[in-house]
Amino acid sequence: MTNIIQPRILKGFRDFLPPAEIERRSLVERIEASFRMYGFVPIDTPALEYAEILLGKGGGETEKQIYRFTDNGGRDVALRFDLTVPFARFVAEHREELPLPFKRYHIAKVWRGENTQRGRYREFTQCDFDIVGSGSAAADFEILLVIYNTLKAIDAGDVIIRINHRGLFNRFIVRLDLRNKAAEILRTVDKLTKAGRDATAESLEEIAGKERAAEILRFIGAEGGFEETLKTVTEAAGGDCPESERLRLIHSFMIDTGIAGSFVLDPSITRGLDYYTGVVFETFLKDMPEIGSVCSGGRYDDLAGLYSREELTGVGSSIGLDRLIAALESRGRATGRLSYVKAAIVCVDEAAGGAYQVLAERFRERGIPCEVFPEAKKLIQQFVLAEKKGIPWAVIPGEKPMESPLTLRELATRRDRTDLSFEEAAAVLGR
Amino acid sequence: MTNIIQPRILKGFRDFLPPAEIERRSLVERIEASFRMYGFVPIDTPALEYAEILLGKGGGETEKQIYRFTDNGGRDVALRFDLTVPFARFVAEHREELPLPFKRYHIAKVWRGENTQRGRYREFTQCDFDIVGSGSAAADFEILLVIYNTLKAIDAGDVIIRINHRGLFNRFIVRLDLRNKAAEILRTVDKLTKAGRDATAESLEEIAGKERAAEILRFIGAEGGFEETLKTVTEAAGGDCPESERLRLIHSFMIDTGIAGSFVLDPSITRGLDYYTGVVFETFLKDMPEIGSVCSGGRYDDLAGLYSREELTGVGSSIGLDRLIAALESRGRATGRLSYVKAAIVCVDEAAGGAYQVLAERFRERGIPCEVFPEAKKLIQQFVLAEKKGIPWAVIPGEKPMESPLTLRELATRRDRTDLSFEEAAAVLGR
Repeated sequence: MTNIIQPRILKGFRDFLPPAEIERRSLVERIEASFRMYGFVPIDTPALEYAEILLGKGGGETEKQIYRFTDNGGRDVALRFDLTVPFARFVAEHREELPLPFKRYHIAKVWRGENTQRGRYREFTQCDFDIVGSGSAAADFEILLVIYNTLKAIDAGDVIIRINHRGLFNRFIVRLDLRNKAAEILRTVDKLTKAGRDATAESLEEIAGKERAAEILRFIGAEGGFEETLKTVTEAAGGDCPESERLRLIHSFMIDTGIAGSFVLDPSITRGLDYYTGVVFETFLKDMPEIGSVCSGGRYDDLAGLYSREELTGVGSSIGLDRLIAALESRGRATGRLSYVKAAIVCVDEAAGGAYQVLAERFRERGIPCEVFPEAKKLIQQFVLAEKKGIPWAVIPGEKPMESPLTLRELATRRDRTDLSFEEAAAVLGR
Repeated sequence: MTNIIQPRILKGFRDFLPPAEIERRSLVERIEASFRMYGFVPIDTPALEYAEILLGKGGGETEKQIYRFTDNGGRDVALRFDLTVPFARFVAEHREELPLPFKRYHIAKVWRGENTQRGRYREFTQCDFDIVGSGSAAADFEILLVIYNTLKAIDAGDVIIRINHRGLFNRFIVRLDLRNKAAEILRTVDKLTKAGRDATAESLEEIAGKERAAEILRFIGAEGGFEETLKTVTEAAGGDCPESERLRLIHSFMIDTGIAGSFVLDPSITRGLDYYTGVVFETFLKDMPEIGSVCSGGRYDDLAGLYSREELTGVGSSIGLDRLIAALESRGRATGRLSYVKAAIVCVDEAAGGAYQVLAERFRERGIPCEVFPEAKKLIQQFVLAEKKGIPWAVIPGEKPMESPLTLRELATRRDRTDLSFEEAAAVLGR
């Protein structure tokens, strides 16, 4: 007897069994349908790229987490760790083939050798969507509208989308004469929720001194309606400016479309040290804010700057699929579906396998997915199998499957409907 | 000015721009819909696994082609090179959670560092579907039926599915007293199409001697209707046996379902040195047989033998997506779709961005995907953009987008329909 290899997978990686994969696919299909409704089109890029391309100028955290190796041809390659960097490379490389503004979505796996103790995975799916080549407020707003409607389409419940303008924050920092400490302040403010107000205040005091720290805290703590907050922060930033004008316009679009109630102008949203330069936003589930943002993004000035001299502005966002699935499951909002079929045709006589498929094909032609059980086991065993597979109905064919009357068994209630014609059976299953 | 990094991708890898990706997704969606109709459910497994798991007993070609490296944790890992090995590991690992027979599909990328000069890619998509845990002829037949109907669903045109039984071939070889040369003969026969009849005859003569080579050539060259060929090869294999019985039953199922005309019993189909033990099959497009098999597979006795002591029989197949796409394109059967939207709402006034989205949302509610152009460029520029994006209609809103009459411009004909109410416009776009 040969030795067997212990079946196992790498830490931080996952198998998806059918119940989980059906759930994920259902979610992705609804997200895609929503993106397509707005004119976003799909692209795909290689999982593996030159390390030089993916790492760009290099960067501490990324460099440590990336799966990087030398391929058989001696090339320095790496698995993509996000979909943004490959998109930047893609846009630079195919600029001439892309009509601008270019609206793309990309739903694909990415890999990061992160510390799995934090409950993170090393392989996960990103859902990115972007509008590149338009600097308009209408593009900013469309991304926000897509977030709002896509989360509605997947039954995520009420959401709060917190938005801010990085440029407004910068003006404020410059006014405080803290321009050279902007990055440090941004980083500190971004950690507000995690660190808490007291620790943040302390850090800010160290960076900017007591008085200015208090001003920063007042700025990022501005509360109230959108307009009120906008007025407060605009004043703090030195008065009306293109950034405040843009927020005002976006807000008017929200009112026009009747979704303003789901948005909050929150000056503490900064998206850390990301490459964003304009509006930034994070999305929270109203009844589960503690899980953090399920969809974040913002506007950037120069997407492909590393790979091209042409400046390309854009705005985009990314849906956190894993986080959303966990949230939906914990709230019982998952579909719980185990199978796509409505019925199993049980096998009474193995020689009738062809006739069972003829019967099944007739159901399928009516749009009723159904499977044929291949082995003539005891009926009760076949019923148990159908139930395990999450199939709602069993069809028990007669001696001549296409002519004899059919019996339908509803597996949940164990109730039979006997003596049905094909049409009658199809009517029940088609419901 | 900083240096830019030349944007480029690895040899053998591909970017998919929207036209190509829309085509691929359309194909995959139809294939998935077909699988689901029959009760196949999706799974997913990690792209990266322990090299030990993927390489199993090891194997020359595979070992050379696989992307293998040491991760940051010192593990010997590799990218999957097919979906069969991960599936075997998956079944062994999750056996208790899978109701048998288990019908799964898996559509995902795999990676092989193949010689790209042969026109092969190093990253490509596989579409596998299998029924595991049933040894019945009904399961063999269902796989064949799914192949037939799935290729029909994607408009691949008429197909010929060539099937054979590896066991029957083995009986014949044993009868010729060539049991210990079976592997060599199988390998030679598998290359028949590529090598040609003369070269194959020569190789067989070297292996088996002139007389037996002639018998092998007669066996694999048997022609005629299914029944006639079955009779010839059954006799050559020593008379009626479970293998011939199974082929007979499968053939009766084909007749029952009216698809027998698309099947040929072809004793030269052996699937080389694959792990198949029962029926094997290859699928050819009737008008493009030269591109080779677009969907191959067969029955195996012991899927997970490397990882489990439990023997699991099954039958499955794999669709060659890249080959199919190339074939569909060359025959003008591709969709040629560039966009999912029916209309672009052109921008006349940027301040009306919210109102344009309200109008667009009303179309979307009617199931009419449409995009909103964000910038008030000249109308002609916006029409050109819409055409480039493959959008059939432009909607020109009036001053009050929700109240004023609309103009619809059909971009292909450059014809306008003016003075339309929303309902009239929706009726045109909804067609």
